[in-house]
Amino acid sequence: VRILITAGPTREYLDDVRYLSNASTGKMGYALVRSARLRGHDVVLVSGPVDLPAPEGCEVLRVVSSREMHAACLSRFPQCDGVIGAAAVCDYRPRARLPGKIKKTGKGLQLDLVETEDILATLGRIKEHRWIVGFALESEDARPNALRKLESKHCDAIVLNHPRAIGADDSSIELIDRSGETAGAWTAEKAVLADHLLAWIESTLGGD
Amino acid sequence: VRILITAGPTREYLDDVRYLSNASTGKMGYALVRSARLRGHDVVLVSGPVDLPAPEGCEVLRVVSSREMHAACLSRFPQCDGVIGAAAVCDYRPRARLPGKIKKTGKGLQLDLVETEDILATLGRIKEHRWIVGFALESEDARPNALRKLESKHCDAIVLNHPRAIGADDSSIELIDRSGETAGAWTAEKAVLADHLLAWIESTLGGD
Repeated sequence: VRILITAGPTREYLDDVRYLSNASTGKMGYALVRSARLRGHDVVLVSGPVDLPAPEGCEVLRVVSSREMHAACLSRFPQCDGVIGAAAVCDYRPRARLPGKIKKTGKGLQLDLVETEDILATLGRIKEHRWIVGFALESEDARPNALRKLESKHCDAIVLNHPRAIGADDSSIELIDRSGETAGAWTAEKAVLADHLLAWIESTLGGD
Repeated sequence: VRILITAGPTREYLDDVRYLSNASTGKMGYALVRSARLRGHDVVLVSGPVDLPAPEGCEVLRVVSSREMHAACLSRFPQCDGVIGAAAVCDYRPRARLPGKIKKTGKGLQLDLVETEDILATLGRIKEHRWIVGFALESEDARPNALRKLESKHCDAIVLNHPRAIGADDSSIELIDRSGETAGAWTAEKAVLADHLLAWIESTLGGD
């Protein structure tokens, strides 16, 4: 089985120096890559800027912005059987990226943010026989929000986690299947969580 | 001689997940710490979030935001003989940090940014006999901008570099002394640049 995996944050630059981002380190996504490789799958990794070494034995596309991640995923998804969207993609980007470095004026700055492309939603529209497993990072009304994302992005399952997970070595996740049922809930190191998720994907989404 | 060194970026959160930052990796600041230690100085490092191991043999204060870096520097500067401000401190922060994670609404988002505390300018006002070496990251009108910062922050010297330096292993810098003269200009690995800067500080600002 050939699996597209996204990992890490994206960065949305307002000028040549400053950007919007989040503290994602890519650990969850890279753990999924390792687990998938060890289980014998082909992997395409689309990775935002992280400090982790490139995993061996798989194609790696390095990107910076959500727009680049969107394009990379669109180019590889058709050749894959499914996607696991573990990246912490920025939801907003500055409307314009200014050249150079915006000078301080002594006053503040009004930053006009627009929503970025929703990568999984895009893949959901062209999925056909392919499966999609998304991640939802939620701080409140977590389960209803995760269910809404599951539905609107045409996911086959969604992994619910919490802002505490960002950058941490371990995490607590709940795996919600297409019917909205809890298919699993674990607190463990990300390597272990990754293996649970891959095992479930193989048995349920036909990843064998 | 006891030297305060700042390194790395800061992060300015708009909610519990998203922040403004820059791609500084802390390499220049950490190279300065190593060089200063090898030259026999005492060092206090105030470091933003970086992926570098904590240097041995010096006090390390880890901070996230520019406000925390400002407070850490204010608390340690009085016990030091000088400061090298190599951190890429965010100039702007969101006026408010919202709890949780701002929900997408399908519309954009207006982000109201205010200027952060200018750490070196604050230290410049209380410096007395202490020396201050700043960094200026400039994309255009570089030298006039660096000279203006030198003056307004009461620096004894300013190191002019370019956005290309961010995250790179080597860099091109120009060292400008208090009179506005070029005291040195080098293109080299950051370890080498750090040693040039420390040598100049020792000979000119009385760091022996």
